[in-house]
Amino acid sequence: MRNRRVILSSRPQAIPQAEHFSIDEAPVEKPGDGQILVRLEYLSVEPAMRGWLADTDNYSAPVGIGDVMRALSAGRVVESRHPAYRPGQAVMGWFGWQEWATVDASAVVRVIAEEDLPLSLSLGVLGLNGVTALLALESIGNPKAGETVLVSTAAGAVGSAVGQLAKMKGARTVGITGGDVKAKLCRDEFGYDAVVDYHAYGADAEGLDAAIAERCPDGVDVFFDNTSGPIADAAFRNLAVRSRVVVCGTAAISKWNPVPEGPRLSRIILTRRVRVEGFVIFDHMDRFDEASARLAQMVREGVLAYREEVDEGLDACSGAIAALYDGQNLGKKVIRLA
Amino acid sequence: MRNRRVILSSRPQAIPQAEHFSIDEAPVEKPGDGQILVRLEYLSVEPAMRGWLADTDNYSAPVGIGDVMRALSAGRVVESRHPAYRPGQAVMGWFGWQEWATVDASAVVRVIAEEDLPLSLSLGVLGLNGVTALLALESIGNPKAGETVLVSTAAGAVGSAVGQLAKMKGARTVGITGGDVKAKLCRDEFGYDAVVDYHAYGADAEGLDAAIAERCPDGVDVFFDNTSGPIADAAFRNLAVRSRVVVCGTAAISKWNPVPEGPRLSRIILTRRVRVEGFVIFDHMDRFDEASARLAQMVREGVLAYREEVDEGLDACSGAIAALYDGQNLGKKVIRLA
Repeated sequence: MRNRRVILSSRPQAIPQAEHFSIDEAPVEKPGDGQILVRLEYLSVEPAMRGWLADTDNYSAPVGIGDVMRALSAGRVVESRHPAYRPGQAVMGWFGWQEWATVDASAVVRVIAEEDLPLSLSLGVLGLNGVTALLALESIGNPKAGETVLVSTAAGAVGSAVGQLAKMKGARTVGITGGDVKAKLCRDEFGYDAVVDYHAYGADAEGLDAAIAERCPDGVDVFFDNTSGPIADAAFRNLAVRSRVVVCGTAAISKWNPVPEGPRLSRIILTRRVRVEGFVIFDHMDRFDEASARLAQMVREGVLAYREEVDEGLDACSGAIAALYDGQNLGKKVIRLA
Repeated sequence: MRNRRVILSSRPQAIPQAEHFSIDEAPVEKPGDGQILVRLEYLSVEPAMRGWLADTDNYSAPVGIGDVMRALSAGRVVESRHPAYRPGQAVMGWFGWQEWATVDASAVVRVIAEEDLPLSLSLGVLGLNGVTALLALESIGNPKAGETVLVSTAAGAVGSAVGQLAKMKGARTVGITGGDVKAKLCRDEFGYDAVVDYHAYGADAEGLDAAIAERCPDGVDVFFDNTSGPIADAAFRNLAVRSRVVVCGTAAISKWNPVPEGPRLSRIILTRRVRVEGFVIFDHMDRFDEASARLAQMVREGVLAYREEVDEGLDACSGAIAALYDGQNLGKKVIRLA
């Protein structure tokens, strides 16, 4: 048996493109002691992959040139030499962008308990994205009933869950997104009370400020930010006293070297007593399983909507990160293997 | 009896200067029901006064043109028509820059219990500055034994207390200050373990970064910032994972309109899971008295050093805020009335 794999062939300096990857073939390796062999069915594509590939400061070492691309994937155990796993089990973990994974059992993030739900959900609304939304919102944002929660990339895999979870807590939710299609999704599928389409304002910062102000007349109590950049700047100018900002992503910044400039935020943070805090899901893996199970229950009850964008075949991986950053994708992007 | 008063005569657009104030004379008013008459002995000068005078966004309404300058002052009750106060009591409160204050009892922040300590301390190390240092450090910074605490304006009225209080909690303390005299003060009087003299680096950001890095080899766990601007930028680049930043002042920014630009901090906040939070003492006035009493005990025990810079006479008020911002003053600036 042959294993097709997506290999990092050169290091991106900005958004990773198809040209930074190549595809090779290697034999499927037999699992050694304590290892499992997994046949992968779904591979995840994350905005965070940009960070995993960058050689600038990050929370983990960058993927090495010549290595299989680091990724969460889901599939079924085919062979196990670890007592906790058996053939046929559905698992999600650090299996990479490839067709088969022969890995230490420590690569498994979760044995998937939700056999009644599609396996792909373990990578999105029940996976990194949904769990990030739930834990970051609860641990940092902590919205109270009646507060206003503003979400950037509001239709995205994380943002769409944040909006719905905040609403369940009794908050008023306002989403920032780009374009008519996503704005409609935000209103109709993700239940936002109001939507700001930032495409309508271009470089008009005052226009964007005013649009947010109009939809958040009492100010923003929780800003869940996945963007950084001018959208975040406008949100900061609309923060309420004692508001909380969850820094969860920086999708609007294409390049961090050199570090781009923006308006200094310290006066807003000081005078409005804002708390700004960064969230990285890998600090919270001990709560992943519990959070995933809570989200699964919401999906079953039909109170948590999600969208997926499924690309077919391993060859779709290489250009998939860039596609996330071009603003066109709708929903969690996963790659389905035949 | 006549009351000499410092009046705001025009609105500063940047650092308030002597020209923005005038001095007038008015009769001393008799206290009405629920009021007290206080003869003032010490008037406080605060960096925060810049904010109280600005018509930009702040945590309180700006001082009106033609009004007595808002200030904390200390003195003795001369006449009382409120049951809680009696002549001879030492009080500190919102009495303004003037010789006599006829005010509602609600203007009193504190009846000064520490008759064994100089009255002027009620405005500095036992007042707004010391209490800010204590409560902001404990509520946001929360340094643990062995952690590194970095303080900007390290020799200032707030910073010097922060450094000493952090040291009492077992932290390693590093102060950033400007010039040999203040650097020596930081080491010899305020007990900092290491000092960065930012004057040595001018606009050399890399030099400042490296100087902080050398003195904080394991990174900065708590950054207590009174400056904003390039000093804060360099400190952010040296933050450790899960560090806390107390945003307590923005002394390095001379003008907030238009908002100046600086490096975007969101990637550091995200990847290092930093918590950044603004602190305004007026949210914590219910804890003022208790904090003040704790600080008084430290002063009595000789474990909390402080410095004062005492100017003589009401006429010294007008130029006093600008003097704070020129970087030359040493210690808490107060005005003594004859």
